[in-house]
Parts: sequence; C-alpha cells; structure tokens
Amino acid sequence: MDRRSVLKKSLTAGAGAALAAPAFSQGKIEWRMVTTWPKNFPGLGVGAENLVKRINIMSAGRLTIKVYSAGELVPPLQALDAVINGTAEMSHGAAYYWQNKNVGLSFFTGVPYGMTSREHAAWVRILGGQQIWDEIYDQFGVQGFLSGDTGTQAGGWFRKEINKVEDIKGLRFRTPGLGGQVWAKLGASVTNLAAGQIFQALQAGTLDAAEFVGPYNDLALGFYQIAKNYYFPSFIEPGLATEAVVNKSKYKALPADLQEIIRTACQAEYDQVASDIYANDPRALETMVSKHGVKVHMFSDEILSAGAKASAEVLTGVRNSDNALAKKTAESFIAGLNLLRQRAEITDSPYLRAREKFFKLK
Amino acid sequence: MDRRSVLKKSLTAGAGAALAAPAFSQGKIEWRMVTTWPKNFPGLGVGAENLVKRINIMSAGRLTIKVYSAGELVPPLQALDAVINGTAEMSHGAAYYWQNKNVGLSFFTGVPYGMTSREHAAWVRILGGQQIWDEIYDQFGVQGFLSGDTGTQAGGWFRKEINKVEDIKGLRFRTPGLGGQVWAKLGASVTNLAAGQIFQALQAGTLDAAEFVGPYNDLALGFYQIAKNYYFPSFIEPGLATEAVVNKSKYKALPADLQEIIRTACQAEYDQVASDIYANDPRALETMVSKHGVKVHMFSDEILSAGAKASAEVLTGVRNSDNALAKKTAESFIAGLNLLRQRAEITDSPYLRAREKFFKLK
Repeated sequence: MDRRSVLKKSLTAGAGAALAAPAFSQGKIEWRMVTTWPKNFPGLGVGAENLVKRINIMSAGRLTIKVYSAGELVPPLQALDAVINGTAEMSHGAAYYWQNKNVGLSFFTGVPYGMTSREHAAWVRILGGQQIWDEIYDQFGVQGFLSGDTGTQAGGWFRKEINKVEDIKGLRFRTPGLGGQVWAKLGASVTNLAAGQIFQALQAGTLDAAEFVGPYNDLALGFYQIAKNYYFPSFIEPGLATEAVVNKSKYKALPADLQEIIRTACQAEYDQVASDIYANDPRALETMVSKHGVKVHMFSDEILSAGAKASAEVLTGVRNSDNALAKKTAESFIAGLNLLRQRAEITDSPYLRAREKFFKLK
Repeated sequence: MDRRSVLKKSLTAGAGAALAAPAFSQGKIEWRMVTTWPKNFPGLGVGAENLVKRINIMSAGRLTIKVYSAGELVPPLQALDAVINGTAEMSHGAAYYWQNKNVGLSFFTGVPYGMTSREHAAWVRILGGQQIWDEIYDQFGVQGFLSGDTGTQAGGWFRKEINKVEDIKGLRFRTPGLGGQVWAKLGASVTNLAAGQIFQALQAGTLDAAEFVGPYNDLALGFYQIAKNYYFPSFIEPGLATEAVVNKSKYKALPADLQEIIRTACQAEYDQVASDIYANDPRALETMVSKHGVKVHMFSDEILSAGAKASAEVLTGVRNSDNALAKKTAESFIAGLNLLRQRAEITDSPYLRAREKFFKLK
C-alpha cells in the first residue's frame, strides 16, 4: 500500500478519525478505559477515575484516558473482551470476573480463606504471582496490574440470624465465584446477581441473603432496609484486589516513560483505594448501626470451621484440575499463603489481639 | 548584575558546574537524595533506590536523582537538615528521627500500640494526617510523603527469656523514640544506638537486649549470634512508615507532571516496600530458626498488658503537651485509631484468627 492509498483510507475513516488526528499529530495518545463499576462507585470505581487522573497528569497530556462506567461503552462483564478485541485499550475490574476464561484468574482477585491484601500484594509482586498472571493473560494479548484492594470484606446480609451450619441449608444467597462454591458446600442455594439487581431480589423475596463488599459499598446499595443482620468477617473474601488491564501490544508500543507511568500509577492507586476503604468502612458501619438499626454479628466458630473445610476442598479442586495454568496458579498461591501466614500468625494477628484486649485510650 | 557578570560567575564556579551545564540547558534537572540507610539496606534502603529509579524513568530523564546512603554526603541523622539547608533536594528516612524538632513527627512513622500499616496509610491519606504533617513540615520548608512501611515489627532480641514485667527491670535495652519511653516505664534501662553499633554493644556486653526491625533486616545484622531469644510482636512498632522528603520550594518550582511523578512514585514504592518485607520476613525467620537456633517467643499477656498501659501514658503525655502541633497530631491520630480499630476488630483480626484456627492446606 503506497502513501496515497494510506492517506485516502484514513480520510474515508470518517469524522471521528478526522477529529482525533490533530491530537495524534502532536504526539498525543487517546485511550479508552472500560470498567465493571457503576458511575461514582465508592472506593473501587473512584479508584479507576483517580488512576486515570494520575496518568493524564504524569504524562503531561501525552496519554489521556477516558473512563467509561459499566454499560456506557460495553456491558460490565464484557470489559476484558473489549480490551482483547480492541474496542478499548484498558479495562478496570476484577480478574475473578473472567474465571470462565481460566479459573486460575480467581487467585489474582482473592479466594476463600486465602490471603489478606498485604499478603496478596506480596505474592503478586515478590513471590512470583505476577509472572503466572502474565502467562495466563498473554494468551489473550493483555497485561494485568493490581489497581486496588478492599481488604477483608463483610460476610453478608441475612434476614434471619444464622448460628449453625444447619441454618444455612436452602438459604437463597447471592455470592459469586469460588466463594459461591464454598457457600454451596455449606448448604446454601447460591446465585450470582450484578450489583444493581441485588436489592430488588431481596425486596421481592427471591433472595434470603446477599454479600457484596463491605460497609462503605453496601451502605450505598441499601441492603439494610431488607436484611438487618450483618455478619463478619467474610471468610470467602479476606481481600479482594481489583485489576487494571491494558492491551499488551498497545502497551508495549508506548515509550518507556509512559509504560512506567501506567505501571506506577496502578500501584499507587492500589494503595489509595485500600486507604479509602479502610477509612470509610467504619464510618459507614457506624451510620448503619446508629441510624438504620443494623445488627452486627460475628460468624460462629461452627460456621467458620465448616467454611474452612469447604474452602480447602474448593482450592484443592483447582489445584488438581486439568488446566495446567490454573493448577500452577493454585500451587504458587498455596505455597505463598503457607509462607506468608507465618508472619501474620507471629506479628499481625497477635498484635491486633493484644491491642483489642489491653489498649484503651479515648 | 548584568548578563556578562552572571556568565563570568558561572564560569568561575569550576569544572563541576561547567559539566552540569549542558544537562541543565536541555531542561534536565539533577537532584540529590540523602538517606538514613546503610548501602543496600534490605527493604527500606532498597525502597529509596527503587523510588528514584521510578522517577528517573517516568520523567524520561528530565529529573534524575542520585541517592547517597548514610554518611556518603551527610551523617544519617542530618538527612532532614541537609534538605532544609539545601545540601540535598530530597531525603529518605523516618519522620520519628526528627522528633527533637517536633514530637508530633513520631506519629508519621508509627507509635506504641498505634496503627498497623494499612490503618496508618488510611489516617495519613484520608483522615487528615497528611494535612497536619504538612503543617509541621511547612515550618521547615519541606514536604513529606510516605515512602514505605515495615508492617508490624518483631519485639526484640533478648539474652534471657522475659516472662514477667519483673524480668525487664534494669535490662539494658536498645530501642528508640516513644517506644523507648514505654520500655523505660516497664523498667528497662533504655539506650538508642545506630544500626551499625548494636551488634558490637551486644557482643561487648554493654547491652542485654535490642530491637531493630524484623527478621528480614535483623538477619543481616546478626543479632542471633549473641541473643537467641526473639520475641514477638512489637507492641511499640505495630507499623513503621518511612518518608521521602523534598525541599518544598524546589518541589513547587517543578512542572505539574514532575510533581505528580514524585508523589505517585512515593505512594507506589510505599506499597512495594511493604510487599518486599511481608514476603521476606518469613523466609528470613525460617533461616534463623532452622540454621541459627533462634528461639521464637511470644510476649506474655502480663508484658503486653503493662506495655499497653505504659503506651497510653506516653501518648497521653504528647496529647497534653504545650506543643500545639504535637497535641493536634496526637488528637487526630487517637481519634483516627479509635475509628480504624473498629474495622480491624470486626474483620481483619477475626479473619486471621479463624484462618489460624481452622484452615489447613499444605
């Protein structure tokens, strides 16, 4: 194809391309980021917006990214496909949404009785997690970066108190992914619903219970109006990392400074999202308890123990699967967890216990 | 002064200035960062090196920073003064080293029975901590950013077992800052020594015990050769944040993209340092136990409880001090802690306890 036909082709590409041309001719790159989050979604969705702001400022406008909330450009659960097929250059969501592509992807978000957020970052960044994640995503021509974490979540909203495993039997419970498999093993009738549908299903009585994130996010969705019993902690989501995904060939085509700007912005925003949620969860919970009559409960040892057994079975299932990369992911994760939990059990956990028991200063 | 005399003056500044001139004429800025860390210091010192690498790459060489380890340009405990007086543009260390300038600065590193690293970041970034830190540092013309965190540390190395508060009486113990005040209240004879002097003092018998950081750092310094009893957790350093400090007027003179590059690089590296230490602490501890005969102990409830009482007294002392900014810092920190610990007590701590008790998967 000679230069004239290239020119002709670009002219026939229509008004959109013509408008974009001046920006590109000044060396400016314009990208689209599709997300799985509703507009202004606390913590996680705001993290996507902030990530892009950092990139836009650090690149001095050479790389500007426009954020699309769930459904604006593509439906939320097509965000990764949009990056794979070129509809967008980036996406922001959670890797476990794509476990139908590879169940190993669950481990890059968080799994039942798995790692806390600090442990998870240590596994991904230092203990080889990122390399396995790259192997999986290479098959799809994309690259993932951690971009946020909720920390340990709340266990869920229940109409009635649940004290024993027996109380779970037949409970119609909204919870996704490997965590859903754990609750199914405990006897629940598990369904997954998108964020926007949960409240309605609770109200209509087609759901008995639901878990979503934690106080900061759950308050916004109003579950407390229907189910007053709020259980802690989530043993199926001890940490939940979000991801930012880029189309790998477009990423590799960027100059080194812009590549590093994206990578570093994701890591900084990862920390910012965790801070935001840590600070706002207790404020939201105070509001729910004092203004909305929410009853806070802790899961009983019977349920925590049965949940642990079911979680070990679910993770062992992935480890023994025929999918070589999922197996490799599970093995690396379990080895990492068995290393990292030693630190938690000797420092983090005993410290928190001592502070709770002995330290009072109002 | 006319242009000719300026030119003449710059020519007389000597070879160094003449060599730097071509770089500057292409819009390149060269900065110096002094640190309080020995060369190749695991975790924290490596964090300073990595921070600078990120900035150098993201700025595409427009801002290049050279790192000086402790003593190379100025002694470690003069790092902040070097930034204040213009010897360097940046420093990397810990804010509590400068508590003689304002005791409130301790709270930007970590205090006895205070916040864990995630809680501390939430306070600094979301709950108003950064604004108070800025108020304190504005007096000195500098700006601080969090740049790393060790997480909950180890409690220290002891020649003999300590089971009761009585066993602490007269113990010659190396531990700095407000934590040192806590151990003094428990009966220890507290001294502070720089990292490089601790081993020698233990060996010479002028110290009975010492605490430094945690397994990753402590292994490198070889304390296990003298004092075999390693106690956990550190109730005086439940998290220890490092800082990167910039000369404020030089920072404000940078274009907006370079300012954001520094800010975001610090936050990303904060997370990287925490990941590095979380991953490497348990590996180092395994080595110490299996190869060097280290005996791991947990502090008794009697000591943890007495430590909590002493810590509350020390923090109350700062809150009631005449120093308005230190008082303001302590009040904000204590209010933040009382909010944030609610999340820890309902999610993080019960989750860790449940995992420890019920979840086994080798």
